[in-house]
Amino acid sequence: MAGNSFGTIFRLTSFGESHGKAIGGIIDGCPANVELNLKKIQFELNRRKPGQSSITTQRNESDEVEFLSGIFEGKTLGTPIAFIIKNADQKSEDYDQLKNVYRPSHADYTYQEKYGIRDHRGGGRSSARETAARVVAGAIAKQILAIKNISVYAFVSQIGSVKMENIDGNFSSDDIEKSLVRCPEIGTTSEMIKRIEQVRKDGDSIGGKITGRIEGMPVGVGEPVFDKLNAELAKAMFSINAVKGFELGSGFDSVEMTGSIHNDEFLPGGKTKTNHSGGIQGGISNGETIQFGVAFKPVATIAQKQKTIDTSNQEITLEAKGRHDPCVVPRAVVIVESMAALVILDQLLRRKANAL
Amino acid sequence: MAGNSFGTIFRLTSFGESHGKAIGGIIDGCPANVELNLKKIQFELNRRKPGQSSITTQRNESDEVEFLSGIFEGKTLGTPIAFIIKNADQKSEDYDQLKNVYRPSHADYTYQEKYGIRDHRGGGRSSARETAARVVAGAIAKQILAIKNISVYAFVSQIGSVKMENIDGNFSSDDIEKSLVRCPEIGTTSEMIKRIEQVRKDGDSIGGKITGRIEGMPVGVGEPVFDKLNAELAKAMFSINAVKGFELGSGFDSVEMTGSIHNDEFLPGGKTKTNHSGGIQGGISNGETIQFGVAFKPVATIAQKQKTIDTSNQEITLEAKGRHDPCVVPRAVVIVESMAALVILDQLLRRKANAL
Amino acid sequence: MAGNSFGTIFRLTSFGESHGKAIGGIIDGCPANVELNLKKIQFELNRRKPGQSSITTQRNESDEVEFLSGIFEGKTLGTPIAFIIKNADQKSEDYDQLKNVYRPSHADYTYQEKYGIRDHRGGGRSSARETAARVVAGAIAKQILAIKNISVYAFVSQIGSVKMENIDGNFSSDDIEKSLVRCPEIGTTSEMIKRIEQVRKDGDSIGGKITGRIEGMPVGVGEPVFDKLNAELAKAMFSINAVKGFELGSGFDSVEMTGSIHNDEFLPGGKTKTNHSGGIQGGISNGETIQFGVAFKPVATIAQKQKTIDTSNQEITLEAKGRHDPCVVPRAVVIVESMAALVILDQLLRRKANAL
Amino acid sequence: MAGNSFGTIFRLTSFGESHGKAIGGIIDGCPANVELNLKKIQFELNRRKPGQSSITTQRNESDEVEFLSGIFEGKTLGTPIAFIIKNADQKSEDYDQLKNVYRPSHADYTYQEKYGIRDHRGGGRSSARETAARVVAGAIAKQILAIKNISVYAFVSQIGSVKMENIDGNFSSDDIEKSLVRCPEIGTTSEMIKRIEQVRKDGDSIGGKITGRIEGMPVGVGEPVFDKLNAELAKAMFSINAVKGFELGSGFDSVEMTGSIHNDEFLPGGKTKTNHSGGIQGGISNGETIQFGVAFKPVATIAQKQKTIDTSNQEITLEAKGRHDPCVVPRAVVIVESMAALVILDQLLRRKANAL
Repeated sequence: MAGNSFGTIFRLTSFGESHGKAIGGIIDGCPANVELNLKKIQFELNRRKPGQSSITTQRNESDEVEFLSGIFEGKTLGTPIAFIIKNADQKSEDYDQLKNVYRPSHADYTYQEKYGIRDHRGGGRSSARETAARVVAGAIAKQILAIKNISVYAFVSQIGSVKMENIDGNFSSDDIEKSLVRCPEIGTTSEMIKRIEQVRKDGDSIGGKITGRIEGMPVGVGEPVFDKLNAELAKAMFSINAVKGFELGSGFDSVEMTGSIHNDEFLPGGKTKTNHSGGIQGGISNGETIQFGVAFKPVATIAQKQKTIDTSNQEITLEAKGRHDPCVVPRAVVIVESMAALVILDQLLRRKANAL
Repeated sequence: MAGNSFGTIFRLTSFGESHGKAIGGIIDGCPANVELNLKKIQFELNRRKPGQSSITTQRNESDEVEFLSGIFEGKTLGTPIAFIIKNADQKSEDYDQLKNVYRPSHADYTYQEKYGIRDHRGGGRSSARETAARVVAGAIAKQILAIKNISVYAFVSQIGSVKMENIDGNFSSDDIEKSLVRCPEIGTTSEMIKRIEQVRKDGDSIGGKITGRIEGMPVGVGEPVFDKLNAELAKAMFSINAVKGFELGSGFDSVEMTGSIHNDEFLPGGKTKTNHSGGIQGGISNGETIQFGVAFKPVATIAQKQKTIDTSNQEITLEAKGRHDPCVVPRAVVIVESMAALVILDQLLRRKANAL
Repeated sequence: MAGNSFGTIFRLTSFGESHGKAIGGIIDGCPANVELNLKKIQFELNRRKPGQSSITTQRNESDEVEFLSGIFEGKTLGTPIAFIIKNADQKSEDYDQLKNVYRPSHADYTYQEKYGIRDHRGGGRSSARETAARVVAGAIAKQILAIKNISVYAFVSQIGSVKMENIDGNFSSDDIEKSLVRCPEIGTTSEMIKRIEQVRKDGDSIGGKITGRIEGMPVGVGEPVFDKLNAELAKAMFSINAVKGFELGSGFDSVEMTGSIHNDEFLPGGKTKTNHSGGIQGGISNGETIQFGVAFKPVATIAQKQKTIDTSNQEITLEAKGRHDPCVVPRAVVIVESMAALVILDQLLRRKANAL
Repeated sequence: MAGNSFGTIFRLTSFGESHGKAIGGIIDGCPANVELNLKKIQFELNRRKPGQSSITTQRNESDEVEFLSGIFEGKTLGTPIAFIIKNADQKSEDYDQLKNVYRPSHADYTYQEKYGIRDHRGGGRSSARETAARVVAGAIAKQILAIKNISVYAFVSQIGSVKMENIDGNFSSDDIEKSLVRCPEIGTTSEMIKRIEQVRKDGDSIGGKITGRIEGMPVGVGEPVFDKLNAELAKAMFSINAVKGFELGSGFDSVEMTGSIHNDEFLPGGKTKTNHSGGIQGGISNGETIQFGVAFKPVATIAQKQKTIDTSNQEITLEAKGRHDPCVVPRAVVIVESMAALVILDQLLRRKANAL
């Protein structure tokens, strides 16, 4: 059981190394007869790519998605949807310097030890480029969820020590997207940008936090005991590169709370007065907004010199070449949304078998 | 795909409602010809049960595990290991009052909405009693991991706002077990007990945090991309009742760190100078200690009166009867260990197929 | 991935050695809120057990099924249904003679080589006793299929060279069950009994063929490409002990046919004039009766002396003790029905996710 | 759980409609660091394609496989191997006549009813063109099995009523491949060709039987109870288009045999005197040659006029255009081999987890 598939009914299997011919995937189990807006899928893919703003890396990846099967006259056939995103001709000799180096906090060493072989060019399979396939599948999932009036979105709620003032506020997708860092608070956005610019100047990188929301959930989605909706979301988020933490609703704050404060009182109609549960009780959606937080570490690639070892186990000093993102968190927003959408749609379809 | 199985090769399928005849499970995929110490399994089960100390609930559950198959003359056969734990004859009329009530922050409402039916006695399938099956399977996994010199243990690092002073310290299992709250620091233990006693007096409950560690890991365990070792651990922990957060290594603290500080410099031999990665890089173990934190909310059952609704959607006031744990976190230590052991053993077996 | 689970949504995981404490299983994914007739389940189990008639073995296995979870006040909860069938206290010393013997065409040798250990008493996990768990799960599946007006039944169409005259005839369950050999033709039944009696006298055993039918199928059940309805049926039947062949519709006869004869002409309304397809086209049910044949070899245990080897690789002569069935095919009818019911219900539930 | 994946550890997920942009697949779980001969893969693919000889259809499909990932400098990376085979620009207007027709014994009707939509061009997903992806994956599996000295091959043992004289004979791959119909007996080959030529003249089609063999099997491969090696082979073969029957070893002939004749006597060393078991006992390989038979119906597309219905449920007369194979059985030999190789390699890898 290699681990390149995600989901049980709506199931993405992804492939591709960052500097191979292409990356892509197959979605099996997509409901039939659904009209898809292919432009919107490309739009989501563009949200992920580098070079969107002055504060991100200037590499220009084209990232055009091409569908090979499963869609006929604009509609899903119920058969596997295969898609590829070609890798641009990158000068892989740029990566020759990395052939014999184990970069700190990258996966070079663990891949080599696990498989006895690795594609050293740009991280190969461990590169975050792989997440582009998730965004394509997630964009399809989002379109299907929208038919059911379920919306999935996320925003940057913290960069370094710069936090949003009101993480629970109401804001639109526009509020999020018009911010260079995908933070819906204008003042906080400015502070975040400053922090990132500072880090870039230092040749360093910085972490951040993304808050995700799922609105319009029906009650009853999620499969106890082991495949609880929250458990699947936790796995989904922790499968994203650089993620170090996940919390639902009250999250780590709940540790310091008492039950009398934390409990969500039911109101007639089944809604709850508070939402410390984060929309899930007993692993099953309760109809409230699902809200969760995801912690991202600072990216491992930095411009500063670092000590490390080479593949012959000798100490060396590494100096990264090329331009790199000082903070990938704003770009990761669409990845968080995509993984959440994959979980929700899969569980929504699984729920169909709960009753005869 | 109902969700009552966990793992792919070493796979537990559990069953049972809290007030049915029995709970239990089947472990499929246990390696053959392994000698098992059945007393140690019962010992682990005893670590989970209520009534172990003055600060926990005084209900007395016997929780004797009985094995039905898969073990022959003390050794595993490679065939399914089935086990049951009978439910003591509990007066289920005690629960008649709950038949028509949706308790706040419990799963009564979501189960009813999902399935159109529920066993209302004591939470039924959503009861934490279900975790006893995980402890049995986890105890077997631990014994097998011990053969490979891998040890899995956990401790309580926070209760309410009472935190350990040095979460990264060295301590033995004895240091942990001799503490009433399974916290290896003596002074912190006293503070935690005080906090719990206070909460009990208030008829309230309190949350806490458990820190887990896996020592002796070989390099190369974990299946990228979606079944990363950290992703499986996150899912495992979030499948436990009352868990609201999970973090690996630097966790949520990494958000405020820069890459130059966070990166784990490699030393000759492949060890790293620091362990912000928490023992996993690119979803694969790197040979360092895996350290993670799990946030538990305060348990939902409290002695205080609470407003809620009944199944006819009318507002009512709920007053819980019987004795309840004000803080389950110390008892949850063995559950955290068990789920971690299930993940590690499963991934260790999956790894065997990485090469021919 | 050990192989003790069957099905994807409606999923049976079975356990148990023939001479351990019990056999049984867990059904996960049973739809909620379905009323079950437990007596009918026991009735099906009785159809499988030895000693039903003068021509079968006289061993008396009680085979009482006991349900431990998943059923509440007579209805399914949607949670796992666990059940056990205790093994009667059999004198396992009877089997001491088999401890060091590899019986011809049994699984003693392959189990020992695979696992390095085996429970030698009566075949252990490889015993056909294991199929009792399938009958319990199959009986539940049948009851659920009946709600959808789908009926699954089977009959003995051949014993040795004694064949039914009209395998495609119409007959009722009564016609089948009133026959000692579960063959709906009275004359053929007599011939079959004679053949079996002869074989018994010879201290030998004989093979046979079972024909299965599924009536009332809706169109559209079955998941191409690999999980075709016929592929799942083939696997299901070949998982039964002693099965050597499976065919659908025209089966092996189709080899000698031409397309102009074999093709099933469509009639207005979607029915077909002939049913060489056996009710499945492209792996998907077409609404016609699904008809299939299953070949059973003669059972390996015979009263005659046989040459074989022991575990020290020495030639020995084996003489079986105790009474044994000369022909298990009549008892296997309910096993064939059960496996077919498991496949159909699982695929029926899978189909629910085909559209949004 | 849509059904487009096969295998558990070595796992193929395939995609593609016959007249979409491409077909192909992803292999997940291929062992790392294995050198692959890509030319040999293309060679196997060529064995499947139409137009290989005067007796097959003259359509010229190029069927060039292109690998997109998972292979680096000629070796497997342990990451997903994605591949595509582009569909040649076929005039899909040729298929406009089929848009509203349900062809007899094709899957047009069942796909339409299942999904509410279908790609009518040339069968879409139900086309046997899909099997090209299996051949690519099977060719890789064969190369890996060869490292373990396991060889998988098949041959045509019957066309219509023309049968081989000695199905159990010894012959080489060359004996098979030099026959136009892939039958290793020269005389029988002539008879088979005559029969196919006759059928072609009649505008008709004819069925056949393929015999498969796996040599060099180690003892102990196959996972009881449900995933028996024979059960997985049965499923694999029945997932191939046009298959109507599968038998192992003595197969349907066993029905008429007695146990004293059928039982395979063990010889010192563990080999058996006869091989009625067909190399598998209790679902586990016993080290003998695995031999099985697969029945293929006559292909549904024939040149003769046929009555059928259109999508408006009106009776119509269908007259197929274009050239079609009167007998696909010789071309199916490589598909049978490929599916067998996928099963064996997957179970070989699964077996690695049997012991610690």
